[in-house]
Amino acid sequence: MTGYDLLQFFDVSIAFIWHAPHTNIYPELRRMEGEGLLESEELPRGQRGVKRLYRLTDLGFEELHRHASRLTLPTRERDPYRLRAAYLEWSDPVAARAQLQAHVDHFEHWRDAWATELGHIRARDSSLLVKRLARTDAKDHDAIVAFRAFAYEGLVEHASMEINWAKRGLKLIDTLAAAGWAGPPSMRPDADAPAGA
Amino acid sequence: MTGYDLLQFFDVSIAFIWHAPHTNIYPELRRMEGEGLLESEELPRGQRGVKRLYRLTDLGFEELHRHASRLTLPTRERDPYRLRAAYLEWSDPVAARAQLQAHVDHFEHWRDAWATELGHIRARDSSLLVKRLARTDAKDHDAIVAFRAFAYEGLVEHASMEINWAKRGLKLIDTLAAAGWAGPPSMRPDADAPAGA
Repeated sequence: MTGYDLLQFFDVSIAFIWHAPHTNIYPELRRMEGEGLLESEELPRGQRGVKRLYRLTDLGFEELHRHASRLTLPTRERDPYRLRAAYLEWSDPVAARAQLQAHVDHFEHWRDAWATELGHIRARDSSLLVKRLARTDAKDHDAIVAFRAFAYEGLVEHASMEINWAKRGLKLIDTLAAAGWAGPPSMRPDADAPAGA
Repeated sequence: MTGYDLLQFFDVSIAFIWHAPHTNIYPELRRMEGEGLLESEELPRGQRGVKRLYRLTDLGFEELHRHASRLTLPTRERDPYRLRAAYLEWSDPVAARAQLQAHVDHFEHWRDAWATELGHIRARDSSLLVKRLARTDAKDHDAIVAFRAFAYEGLVEHASMEINWAKRGLKLIDTLAAAGWAGPPSMRPDADAPAGA
């Protein structure tokens, strides 16, 4: 593919799983070519222009296999949504509702997008997947499709979990507000204060 | 609290949600004091030593309220687990199983730890929460406990989702391996190759 082709696929497909700014693509292609993972050739583009077409080298395929096979342990938790939720009493009912509603809206949007793409993967008519299958032996198609579908099932399941959790949080805010919660807690400033403060 | 107190709580409680290296704590306290969010005083420690006790200033409380109330939109997706899963055919059955088993083990460990802490939060005997409630008016206790529990419920639900997903992946690997999947797909190198390559 050319860098331009990759940009298109990033917008409609790869970004479903890994968002990357457009400005990363061209420098990354040149870096990978410098490391021998890609090779490229110039082709005419229109009347006068040129475009650069990239493909993986044998070394690139080996690195892909090595990378996919390397055991990567999950990282220790850094969960921004739960961090905010754990201290939501420092907010107030209006701001807390807005936060959780934005959470619901975000994940409902993406759950629908991921579920739609999952349908295309299972039907084997997702654009990047079609291109991929055309270049691969038929005996490998089931594994390629099955792992892609498995990944998108995980995206959908994660989004559903986030939506259900945040909707429960919205109900919790209503309950707490009805019971009198109106904003940041009143600290008792003298309790346990530094001596002489 | 002193920096040392904070380290203890980071190890047993806060790190459940937000992992931070110990080396971050002391510089961060000094930075926050420089910005007027914290004030500190030196107290004797043992026979000759001193320790520095920190507390939030009024400005610090205001900033906490402002931060907790600011709408933060969820970020675009960058999901390392689903990224790996989507291209797991580039791995092989042994490496793919090891990856998903590590995923199951990690989240089973943390799901149990989070569920245990959730029990302590609901019982109101979690160590950091006890300290917090002692300094807060009783009328605010329900909201403080409810939001903390809500956050930990999210951690447990997320872990359960990850475990179920990865276990299904392990079964998928068995199915694909039984059907002949043994490693990276065979590319047909001439298909769609650059002209002259």
